[in-house]
Amino acid sequence: MVSPEASHFQSSPMAKYAGARARPVICFNDVVLFLGGAFMSLILVWSFFSFSNSPNLTFSADKTDASTKCTRGIDMRYDPTDPVFYDDPDLSYTIEKPVKNWDEKRKRWLELHPSFIPGSENRTVMITGSQSGPCKNPIGDHLLLRFFKNKVDYCRIHGHDIFYSNALLHPKMKSFWAKLPAVKAAMIAHPEAEWIWWVDSDALFTDMDFTPPFHRYRNHNLVVHGWPGVVYDDRSWTALNAGVFLIRNCQWSMELIDTWTSMGPVSPDFAKWGEIQRSIFKDKLFPESDDQTALIYLLFKHKEVYYPKIYLEGEYYFEGYWLEIVPGLANITERYLEMEREDATLRRRHAEKVSERYAAFREERFLRGESGGKGSKRRPFVTHFTGCQPCSGDHNTMYDGDTCWNGMIKAINFADNQVMRRYGFVHSDLGKTSPLQPVPFDYPDEPW
Amino acid sequence: MVSPEASHFQSSPMAKYAGARARPVICFNDVVLFLGGAFMSLILVWSFFSFSNSPNLTFSADKTDASTKCTRGIDMRYDPTDPVFYDDPDLSYTIEKPVKNWDEKRKRWLELHPSFIPGSENRTVMITGSQSGPCKNPIGDHLLLRFFKNKVDYCRIHGHDIFYSNALLHPKMKSFWAKLPAVKAAMIAHPEAEWIWWVDSDALFTDMDFTPPFHRYRNHNLVVHGWPGVVYDDRSWTALNAGVFLIRNCQWSMELIDTWTSMGPVSPDFAKWGEIQRSIFKDKLFPESDDQTALIYLLFKHKEVYYPKIYLEGEYYFEGYWLEIVPGLANITERYLEMEREDATLRRRHAEKVSERYAAFREERFLRGESGGKGSKRRPFVTHFTGCQPCSGDHNTMYDGDTCWNGMIKAINFADNQVMRRYGFVHSDLGKTSPLQPVPFDYPDEPW
Repeated sequence: MVSPEASHFQSSPMAKYAGARARPVICFNDVVLFLGGAFMSLILVWSFFSFSNSPNLTFSADKTDASTKCTRGIDMRYDPTDPVFYDDPDLSYTIEKPVKNWDEKRKRWLELHPSFIPGSENRTVMITGSQSGPCKNPIGDHLLLRFFKNKVDYCRIHGHDIFYSNALLHPKMKSFWAKLPAVKAAMIAHPEAEWIWWVDSDALFTDMDFTPPFHRYRNHNLVVHGWPGVVYDDRSWTALNAGVFLIRNCQWSMELIDTWTSMGPVSPDFAKWGEIQRSIFKDKLFPESDDQTALIYLLFKHKEVYYPKIYLEGEYYFEGYWLEIVPGLANITERYLEMEREDATLRRRHAEKVSERYAAFREERFLRGESGGKGSKRRPFVTHFTGCQPCSGDHNTMYDGDTCWNGMIKAINFADNQVMRRYGFVHSDLGKTSPLQPVPFDYPDEPW
Repeated sequence: MVSPEASHFQSSPMAKYAGARARPVICFNDVVLFLGGAFMSLILVWSFFSFSNSPNLTFSADKTDASTKCTRGIDMRYDPTDPVFYDDPDLSYTIEKPVKNWDEKRKRWLELHPSFIPGSENRTVMITGSQSGPCKNPIGDHLLLRFFKNKVDYCRIHGHDIFYSNALLHPKMKSFWAKLPAVKAAMIAHPEAEWIWWVDSDALFTDMDFTPPFHRYRNHNLVVHGWPGVVYDDRSWTALNAGVFLIRNCQWSMELIDTWTSMGPVSPDFAKWGEIQRSIFKDKLFPESDDQTALIYLLFKHKEVYYPKIYLEGEYYFEGYWLEIVPGLANITERYLEMEREDATLRRRHAEKVSERYAAFREERFLRGESGGKGSKRRPFVTHFTGCQPCSGDHNTMYDGDTCWNGMIKAINFADNQVMRRYGFVHSDLGKTSPLQPVPFDYPDEPW
């Protein structure tokens, strides 16, 4: 028999639902259905977002998905009022005052400025500089100007910021010591940067395509061109070159800078450090303590502390000696043109801002396995005119001035050719800066 | 009576569901519940994303929502194989060959490179340059180096690319004519840029905060510092200054460049153009046709074509005459320090890359309504050392060399102070470049 309440509603449309509602078993079923619907739609939404966020295969020569997502870039007009390290009166930009807990401070700043997070893993700011007054060498400033332009070109192609330091941040930290206060101030001014890249004023980028292999340095905090054998066995002051280095923007580096500075001119023990360095490194050039020997000293004397964190990059010309590089530049030009004659993609004209794409093509097709050191097929990455002293003109007497200046012009134009291709021109003669020659379509395939 | 099938199952747990399934009314209810669950979860997901993507109130001093969306920036490693203007053999970077349909060509490039679209509305590439060989003036290259650094600083703060041109792209287009081939080549090399900003080597950015009011120029294709009255009534060759201009990267500009060039040294009518210009503009300085007078000529003779599209910006120092600016620099320094003494937000230290935020604060609180021309409270935007000729040293005889060089150093340091604040330092004496003095916390509030 049907219950009395149910029979009362049996004849009306609502009766169907009334009877159902009275049975507790349907409530459980309802819940299951409701949740099932919710779950199904969540699965659909999740699948949709996973599909539209699939990785962009940027290194494929095929047609890849146009990257339409997330392209606003950094927000330079956003700075929240939440306190950060800048608001701490105890934090100083100066070289004398150590910075503490820099990793946490940087991390907090980034968290509060999330637009800077994408791309932050190896974001780099380049620092270079020279003396504040005119050069003694009549063509010194002209050369410095051209070297600076070269760095600005490299940074523009690779999306790095660059800062030129031409005023001392500490009156005593002059000459090669001046870089340390500048680097430290830049670390603090650029919390968005993971690396600060110091490059001497007499160092030139001669491979505009090349990007340092940052993944190789993921466990290190300082990268210099150098060789362990020359540190520990030869004990030479040329074991590494402190004129070009990548330094990670972290607490370890802040402490390295403090220690490094403590062997410099601000230190009461400055004279003593000179003696110590000369006693160990017999070929040391400068009588006084210098930044390069001081760094080698730290590696030598405190290997367990420094060797794990300082990458002595000897595989490619992270910094290369000009004297062994310049004579080969014409051959390298020809070799790269030959690659382009073989490969239409490398001849294809393109916007300067997508140059990294074509660098990747060349890498894949012609340069795999090429380390980039002496005798390599690669262009030398950085050519450093050590000993030439373009500003003072007081070059090392083992070569004459003209070899230096002519070598510089040749290397500058060699690098500039890589830049000017994107503007439709080349220097057909590396020794001649101006005028340029227009590059014909599909160069260098057609007769030049 | 209960039906026979139902009674058969009545005693088992499954019986509850068996009886329910047999009634069609519950199927509809099930569907409603299922869809209800799906809809509810979609509402929840949509609410969640709306909440986390709420607009960023960047100009509010209050705590705003962190902008977490879409922040990857431009993709420099993506260049699809779809044909673009670069693949057209008829398109040339050189000054002699006109470019056609440039608007369509740029548009297609951007559509194929969508990561470059956000921010493209007023994206700017700055071009500057100087002669290819060392300057005759012994301190010439030193000054050029410092002027270049100043531009690099401005561009870094505002996120512009910058290119230094120091080689002729056409052997005949020298001196002030050299800028036109460089600007054209840059337009083609940088399709991502809406504006090319030519800035002479002897022009300096003396307000690092200021951004040109691009919205004002939205219907124009060329912006120069100038005055209509001086074009049409006075007929002076100083009616505008062609040493600093914004040129829109569009077909109209390509045609302007062609017309402009046709009055230059490559033209068979070059001598004639000099005569025509001298006949109309009686105070013309150079006997031969020059780029500045040529531009004024176009405005004068073909007003209906050029005046609607060339913005003669006379309201602020889009380009300012150094002689009337330099004497007031110390006062302006003091005035800006006074603003900072009044306003703690302006004293707040911050990353260099968010300087635009603080420029906006200062704008709102102290500079509203300040046009920026002569006698204005604003810093002069650009200070142009016209007539000083730092490279050759052949300055206009109405002032002596020292006035020029000392004025330059003062203006350079005035500008540099705005940069170095973000690195923790200042020049306390505008006449002295080095060393810098550290800036105390909360400067300039505490006694200096």
